[in-house]
Amino acid sequence: MPEQSPFDLAEGDPFGPHTLPYGVFSTSDAPERRRLGVRYGRHVLDLSALPSALPAVVQPSHGALLTAPTLNPLLAAGRSVWQEVRAAVRTAVTAPEHRATVTPLLRPLDEVALHLPFEVADYVDFYSSEHHATNVGRIFRPNGAALPPNWKHLPIGYHGRSGTVVVTGTPVVRPNGQRKTPADAAPTFGPSARLDIEAEVGFVVGTPSSLHEPVGLDAFRNHVFGVCLVNDWSARDIQAWEYMPLGPFLGKSFATSVSAWITPLDAFDAARTAPPARDFPLLPYLDDAEVEPGGIDIRIEVAVNGERLSSPPFSAMYWTAAQQLAHMTVNGASLRTGDLFASGTVSGPEPDQLGCLLEITQGKGPYLQDGDEVTLTAWAPGPDGTRIGLGEVTGHVLPAPALTGSPQEAP
Amino acid sequence: MPEQSPFDLAEGDPFGPHTLPYGVFSTSDAPERRRLGVRYGRHVLDLSALPSALPAVVQPSHGALLTAPTLNPLLAAGRSVWQEVRAAVRTAVTAPEHRATVTPLLRPLDEVALHLPFEVADYVDFYSSEHHATNVGRIFRPNGAALPPNWKHLPIGYHGRSGTVVVTGTPVVRPNGQRKTPADAAPTFGPSARLDIEAEVGFVVGTPSSLHEPVGLDAFRNHVFGVCLVNDWSARDIQAWEYMPLGPFLGKSFATSVSAWITPLDAFDAARTAPPARDFPLLPYLDDAEVEPGGIDIRIEVAVNGERLSSPPFSAMYWTAAQQLAHMTVNGASLRTGDLFASGTVSGPEPDQLGCLLEITQGKGPYLQDGDEVTLTAWAPGPDGTRIGLGEVTGHVLPAPALTGSPQEAP
Repeated sequence: MPEQSPFDLAEGDPFGPHTLPYGVFSTSDAPERRRLGVRYGRHVLDLSALPSALPAVVQPSHGALLTAPTLNPLLAAGRSVWQEVRAAVRTAVTAPEHRATVTPLLRPLDEVALHLPFEVADYVDFYSSEHHATNVGRIFRPNGAALPPNWKHLPIGYHGRSGTVVVTGTPVVRPNGQRKTPADAAPTFGPSARLDIEAEVGFVVGTPSSLHEPVGLDAFRNHVFGVCLVNDWSARDIQAWEYMPLGPFLGKSFATSVSAWITPLDAFDAARTAPPARDFPLLPYLDDAEVEPGGIDIRIEVAVNGERLSSPPFSAMYWTAAQQLAHMTVNGASLRTGDLFASGTVSGPEPDQLGCLLEITQGKGPYLQDGDEVTLTAWAPGPDGTRIGLGEVTGHVLPAPALTGSPQEAP
Repeated sequence: MPEQSPFDLAEGDPFGPHTLPYGVFSTSDAPERRRLGVRYGRHVLDLSALPSALPAVVQPSHGALLTAPTLNPLLAAGRSVWQEVRAAVRTAVTAPEHRATVTPLLRPLDEVALHLPFEVADYVDFYSSEHHATNVGRIFRPNGAALPPNWKHLPIGYHGRSGTVVVTGTPVVRPNGQRKTPADAAPTFGPSARLDIEAEVGFVVGTPSSLHEPVGLDAFRNHVFGVCLVNDWSARDIQAWEYMPLGPFLGKSFATSVSAWITPLDAFDAARTAPPARDFPLLPYLDDAEVEPGGIDIRIEVAVNGERLSSPPFSAMYWTAAQQLAHMTVNGASLRTGDLFASGTVSGPEPDQLGCLLEITQGKGPYLQDGDEVTLTAWAPGPDGTRIGLGEVTGHVLPAPALTGSPQEAP
């Protein structure tokens, strides 16, 4: 069988010329040398080589951005540069006259190692699916209202641990921790027995903002560079015992997996949808009636050990990413390049649209077993019947570390 | 009056040769050039000039650490290097034979600008004063138990926003936000009417740890570089409306002020105290009966507009910093150089020992007014009757930004 050209994409390939997501890769001959890449079909375009290979296509001032070892300099460069670089990359992979030059810059995807594509500054996790929040509320607080009274007035969120955001493929070690069931007289310590996933969509901030200057709904596109998939691993037993009154901490902070590819926000223009109808009037800073539709029709699929578990629809989210960003900064908090904010678990109204095992099993389990492999994939409609891909997020569950009297002796 | 020698410290000066805290400064003739400094009395020793000025005292391998623009390289270098550098600095400021060489390296404190001394990685805030948690619980949840059931089994904590950690002297702009009193039919938006302080002690991580490897109580000194003062500004009305069920978010994320000086952990050896007696048996990873005393006798003073408001005693904290670190990592979460974790509001049992206005005014106010200036100072007993100083934290309250229909139009 003759080798297929990297330019011949399979029918419906979600990584065609309308997607072009960014990542960071290395090759086995230079494992320490991290380079920017763009995924095209089953190949990775080596961006670090593009400025010298196609000087007529890449602006000279972009050379330093494309030869950096992380996406952060490109993220910080701002929207007009993002658009110029994206146009240059599209020309590189689509213009027939550049094929001979570009072919050696395309590496087969299965021959490269993928890395965390950007340095995460602050990580914020929201809670913006009404279906998820309602389902979880019923399980965690069976005697109270399913939704707290603030839920439809503001997008509830909290800060997570940015230091434990890991790239797809990183094994997830089952955490040890404290948990206490109502039947226990005292808390016990040991491996989480209720290890769960949360299928989420993440947004990566490029352009920073100044302290004391809120970022309004209209400014969303100026600050957000792109979109990734997120698995916000959660230890439900640890979380249930610790979270009152200051929120999730160790039940979440052991690992948050993100895709290796950041799909540019502009790639989702054809997938914009109106969010669900609002049940309460929104305060002006959150009122998105007059701005571009804030929903995105991203269709997620959750698979465990290769079997499809559910298909959460991102279009069903009550709060949009633009509202989350406006809320997050309305108190004057600044944004930094590399800030990541995630949607919260994406769940739809149907039984096969739930984004975590807590909901799927109605709090009864079974949860994840050691050895399980969880994979999230997603796509959105693109122009002319094409598909826009998000990078997958995979994680393999490893057993908890053995318990000892003192977890780590002084070295 | 003859100029006083920088080596002649005032009686009881808390920044003598047993303190030697680290910071980052610049001078008006080179405002962009950030340099490491050590405070000595009312002067700052220019560390960047020390390697070339005293090559016999400073190890050659430490030169790059001392000439960096932030403390992070020194933080990352590990405990033995911290000890070597501290010994070299002490020699520089105390050995009579170096006086002539060192004198030109000492800048008067009031002639330098002080900057955030390290790049903050993750910021975690705890809730470890029993007096504070009890007082707040009674105010926020008058119909429930003052302490949640988990409180005496684990040090409750949550992640804060590291991107809005600011250095002392940075003005604090009153945040706008949503709040809803029980009397309101719907939430309203506007300047926080209940702007508060939280007097805290912060711990700065130097040596990182690996993912999946908990840092036990015994390893505390290997990872924690030093101690700072923290004012965790809090908008109580925003916080009260938003915090259920995922904890504080915008009520805290607008600003967290830290001192410009990081006092090395070793400076507090003479101030170690036993924490209060435990009311419940602790799980092994938190049981500190057999390790060095984890309390520190730091005496904080809170002043508003120059008048002493209260004197919170850090020795009264139920949970120690070593327990906080052990808890924070017991699930396998890793530490990074520059991680900051703070104690939570320090309050003692007496009425004049409370660390925030919420407690001092029993939830009734008054809270901070525009124009108010809040200053935290602190010291601990040192060897031979000396005092060990922490850097002060000052913040001046500025009015909230004016409200417009959309907080920030697209640029």
